[in-house]
Amino acid sequence: MLKLHYAPDNASLIIRLVLEELGVPFETVLVDRGSNAQQSAAYLKVNPMGTIPALETPHGVIFETAAILLWLVDRAGRMAPAVGSPDRGAFLSWMMVASNGLQIDLRQHFYAERFTSGPVEDHRRIVSTRLRGHLDRYEALLGEGHAWFGSQDPTALDYYIATPLRWFALYLQGEHWFDLSHWPRLKSLAERIEARPAMQAAIIAEGLGATPLSNPSPAIPPEGVAL
Amino acid sequence: MLKLHYAPDNASLIIRLVLEELGVPFETVLVDRGSNAQQSAAYLKVNPMGTIPALETPHGVIFETAAILLWLVDRAGRMAPAVGSPDRGAFLSWMMVASNGLQIDLRQHFYAERFTSGPVEDHRRIVSTRLRGHLDRYEALLGEGHAWFGSQDPTALDYYIATPLRWFALYLQGEHWFDLSHWPRLKSLAERIEARPAMQAAIIAEGLGATPLSNPSPAIPPEGVAL
Repeated sequence: MLKLHYAPDNASLIIRLVLEELGVPFETVLVDRGSNAQQSAAYLKVNPMGTIPALETPHGVIFETAAILLWLVDRAGRMAPAVGSPDRGAFLSWMMVASNGLQIDLRQHFYAERFTSGPVEDHRRIVSTRLRGHLDRYEALLGEGHAWFGSQDPTALDYYIATPLRWFALYLQGEHWFDLSHWPRLKSLAERIEARPAMQAAIIAEGLGATPLSNPSPAIPPEGVAL
Repeated sequence: MLKLHYAPDNASLIIRLVLEELGVPFETVLVDRGSNAQQSAAYLKVNPMGTIPALETPHGVIFETAAILLWLVDRAGRMAPAVGSPDRGAFLSWMMVASNGLQIDLRQHFYAERFTSGPVEDHRRIVSTRLRGHLDRYEALLGEGHAWFGSQDPTALDYYIATPLRWFALYLQGEHWFDLSHWPRLKSLAERIEARPAMQAAIIAEGLGATPLSNPSPAIPPEGVAL
């Protein structure tokens, strides 16, 4: 049985959603961010990076959101172009931008005080320019009509991009530039993804409210603390 | 024929080395960083991220170092645990740390002025703490004796970690904490990788000198400008 180390409304949500979408059974283990448990000796033995999520598998622990996503979808043979398929390279490229661009930059914004010794507002402003660039590029990519992004059957990339739209709306402290209607194709993606049965399961598990991506409200999780 | 968009002594070097190691024929196209060609309209059509490397393939362009590496080794069926192998998850996890940790943090150090509005020295100090953490964790990982990292047959991860050791030694401006002998297993990895025939080809192509990883000197490339 797979075991997902998670915190409510954290990057682990992306993994939960893809596990639900794949119909793969899994257990969850709450990482108590209230007591900074992700930096505890016990958790660092699970994931030496001290990040959430981590996924325990019969073959050992996998960490880093993108690594877990790739592992899950390749194993399932669904939700991604397979190795050898003509779309694999483009899919991987945009998965990596989501990982080392979008996701890292969101972290730099949310926890700005860890990444600068100067005023956090200045740091957030610089990061926001990069974040807007990511949104613009994924919006443009949706306009190209690829089967592996924003198409009928959701892919790992769909969840990887749609889920953080919630965090843009809720957690860009001190900044008010984000309005999902500026990126209409991303908005439509958010609406499609939040209508999936996978999302309904996550809404209950993490207290995400009725429209968690297109018009989110702060999480009220049944256990643990959100961000 | 694959076409690698490269600049001397840039992240594209990792791709060049893996192409050589795999024995895959490829052409190169110089991206002239001297004229900031990576941000030109022509290059942004190749790679909308404006980063080097990009790899043109019969199935379109692939960008992001980690994406290109995964695509190449999965296609070749070498230099990485295959999909479905028990080691795949751990391999992917550490590939992702190399991408969104080590590589991104090196970029934040080398081009600090883009990432902070405050003193670049302060920014570099914060980033250096993260960089040391990455080196420590990869050093520890080498001590665990995995077949997919630092073992007999080089993997994509070996090249992904060993190649930047050169950049640590040459390009950490204003800071002098890096001494490869503090990380003896990484040093041994550097020595093994720089002895590969793949490296000999890259030394000629990019003017890297005799010991480009374990005791590097600045590149004197036959074309283009280094960093």
